[in-house]
Amino acid sequence: MRYPTGIKKGQCTSINHINRGMGLEYDINQTNEYYRCHGIAVIHKKPTPITIVRVDYPSRREAVIKEAYFSTPSTTDYNGIYKGRYIDFEAKETKKEYFPLNNIHDHQVEHLKNIIKLDGIGFIIVSFTKLNKVYLLEAYKLIDFINNEKRKSIPLSYFEQEGYVVKVNYHPRLDYLKIIDDIYFKGEKL
Amino acid sequence: MRYPTGIKKGQCTSINHINRGMGLEYDINQTNEYYRCHGIAVIHKKPTPITIVRVDYPSRREAVIKEAYFSTPSTTDYNGIYKGRYIDFEAKETKKEYFPLNNIHDHQVEHLKNIIKLDGIGFIIVSFTKLNKVYLLEAYKLIDFINNEKRKSIPLSYFEQEGYVVKVNYHPRLDYLKIIDDIYFKGEKL
Repeated sequence: MRYPTGIKKGQCTSINHINRGMGLEYDINQTNEYYRCHGIAVIHKKPTPITIVRVDYPSRREAVIKEAYFSTPSTTDYNGIYKGRYIDFEAKETKKEYFPLNNIHDHQVEHLKNIIKLDGIGFIIVSFTKLNKVYLLEAYKLIDFINNEKRKSIPLSYFEQEGYVVKVNYHPRLDYLKIIDDIYFKGEKL
Repeated sequence: MRYPTGIKKGQCTSINHINRGMGLEYDINQTNEYYRCHGIAVIHKKPTPITIVRVDYPSRREAVIKEAYFSTPSTTDYNGIYKGRYIDFEAKETKKEYFPLNNIHDHQVEHLKNIIKLDGIGFIIVSFTKLNKVYLLEAYKLIDFINNEKRKSIPLSYFEQEGYVVKVNYHPRLDYLKIIDDIYFKGEKL
């Protein structure tokens, strides 16, 4: 492998803990920042897709978006690289004790199918906020469920049986790559 | 490898050629759609990052963004998966006969460094519109240049010597993965 010269490990701004506890997205972003800072993985949340209709330019240097709409995402929210492998996942919170499938767009399921076909690592992370439990479910198990069941939601028991609990720690908050290690890199020297 | 059941290859909408010739971003997006449709690779352009300040809700179902600003990207624009490997790149057009380095943010260079460290495939694609030439330059060569030269732009000769010409074809428009094949997968059975 050719490394470029001048790479510095762990170039990071300090992690801001003020907003701790703002929910799953925040916890995952903090975890990803931890991974990035420690040279473990580079995983980012994609910006929210929007369609811009009107932009004003009050000055030469400034652009203000004055009219825009949220558009349907065609991919999942998170992707990146870990141990050379492509990582791709969607993260969702639910207050229910099951996971309503309308939380995930058809396009996103299709995207995860394509990722698996190309030998990527795809999954979903679901936080059951009332139960205070976070699960990781591999994409192929999500797809299996959709293909084989007529239900419009995945019961908690499916996550309990087929998924993995993501433990909430101090730092990193949600060490989901530990689970990916166990599934995909077992026996490999870390 | 475990494949989920029910995967269909090549689920695509037909590619729209009406806007052909709208520039590099358009050509790359069309190329990526070709790759995706043919089950070759899944590579997407990330949405433009914006900071939303005000959203109106004229009706229960509709949300209109009324004030937002463009924010500085912390990653490159394109990433995805090809042959199991993580792909990451930035694409830029220039009318000049050199490539001004202020076209790429420091954060993006830092991001590419991190990608290489983790064994991802990183590069930039630069279109010299007046010369009608498109080059692919590996990220480590971009970083080498930045580390070793004081110039604020990369001369065309550097692309000629260190980069690869991306040929413009009918379909796909810019087959940049052919170059990635030659560099990274030479000798592998395709």
